Amino acid sequence: MKIARAIRDLVESFEKLPGIGPKTAQRMTFYLLHVPQKDLESFSKSLINLKKNTKICSLCFNISETDPCPICSDPSRDKGKICLLEQPLDILAIEKGCFYKGVYHVLGGVIDPLNNIGPEELHIYDLLPRLKSGKINELIIATNPTIEGEATAMYILNLVKKYKDLKISRIGRGLPTGAALEYADELTLSKSFEGRREY
Amino acid sequence: MKIARAIRDLVESFEKLPGIGPKTAQRMTFYLLHVPQKDLESFSKSLINLKKNTKICSLCFNISETDPCPICSDPSRDKGKICLLEQPLDILAIEKGCFYKGVYHVLGGVIDPLNNIGPEELHIYDLLPRLKSGKINELIIATNPTIEGEATAMYILNLVKKYKDLKISRIGRGLPTGAALEYADELTLSKSFEGRREY
Repeated sequence: MKIARAIRDLVESFEKLPGIGPKTAQRMTFYLLHVPQKDLESFSKSLINLKKNTKICSLCFNISETDPCPICSDPSRDKGKICLLEQPLDILAIEKGCFYKGVYHVLGGVIDPLNNIGPEELHIYDLLPRLKSGKINELIIATNPTIEGEATAMYILNLVKKYKDLKISRIGRGLPTGAALEYADELTLSKSFEGRREY
Repeated sequence: MKIARAIRDLVESFEKLPGIGPKTAQRMTFYLLHVPQKDLESFSKSLINLKKNTKICSLCFNISETDPCPICSDPSRDKGKICLLEQPLDILAIEKGCFYKGVYHVLGGVIDPLNNIGPEELHIYDLLPRLKSGKINELIIATNPTIEGEATAMYILNLVKKYKDLKISRIGRGLPTGAALEYADELTLSKSFEGRREY
């Protein structure tokens, strides 16, 4: 059967999104057929404006409406503490917790030689002028605990360990809150033993 | 942290889609930040055109570019056979198999008293003029094998059984291809025994 072009076009657009297969794309498209045209128009406008109305912060490479971003320009944040993250999305995850009061530095990915991503493709070297300013006293490396994330963390550690006054740390590894030892994998368990803390 | 309005708007639009939670919506939005503006514009255009460029077939209530739809206007299809479905999406699923050569009738949902959906809200009574024409000799009721789907099938059966020459059937129930008896639920197994066929 020939599917209506308007439907096929939208299904194809949805299919390009991460984690969306053909079935989900079809389901979302047919769902939108029941939605008022007004809502479709506001959805469509959000898509067009997404990149037009956002900027990349020239300090931390976060995505925001302003440059510098609200975090870098917030006088109440501790500018001496930098948390190093893979993507802007990770900032949202940390900010939700309200426990971190320093600033960020977004790498824009991880070193991944298999996909031709080297340190030059990331914002790794953009970190150095920030450290050289001498105003930074702590660096928390919070790349993901994956192979690529660990390798990137190692690469950065080698790059920055020459700054003697800089306290460098890696986020803690172990069991997530609410987990059961029974179902944890051996690597997570071994990391939780390595990272044990005295009472 | 205040998230950029352009990002928040798009996340909210994605969140309204079926099966999309806040995390997936965020992931899709941040993914789209790396996509060329051209692609965002074509995505946005597909959304606006979705309802503008589609029609509901006045015969079978399928969604298509033309009225009647390509299936109803195809001279090679057997107009004497009607397959009754819940939604237009189900037509795609059946058409993919290329085994059915009749036409369809889309109900637009199922009878669901808890959500205030009675037979009047569906295209159930629109089926009767088609049957009265006398040109229909077979009706295959292919609503989903859920409680609501079965109840709707029963309701329709009672409505159409007065047409004595009409062969009425319900799609077969049992184990799906590739399944293992070991993991099947008792209801599916009991239906597969009820629906057993002699060699």
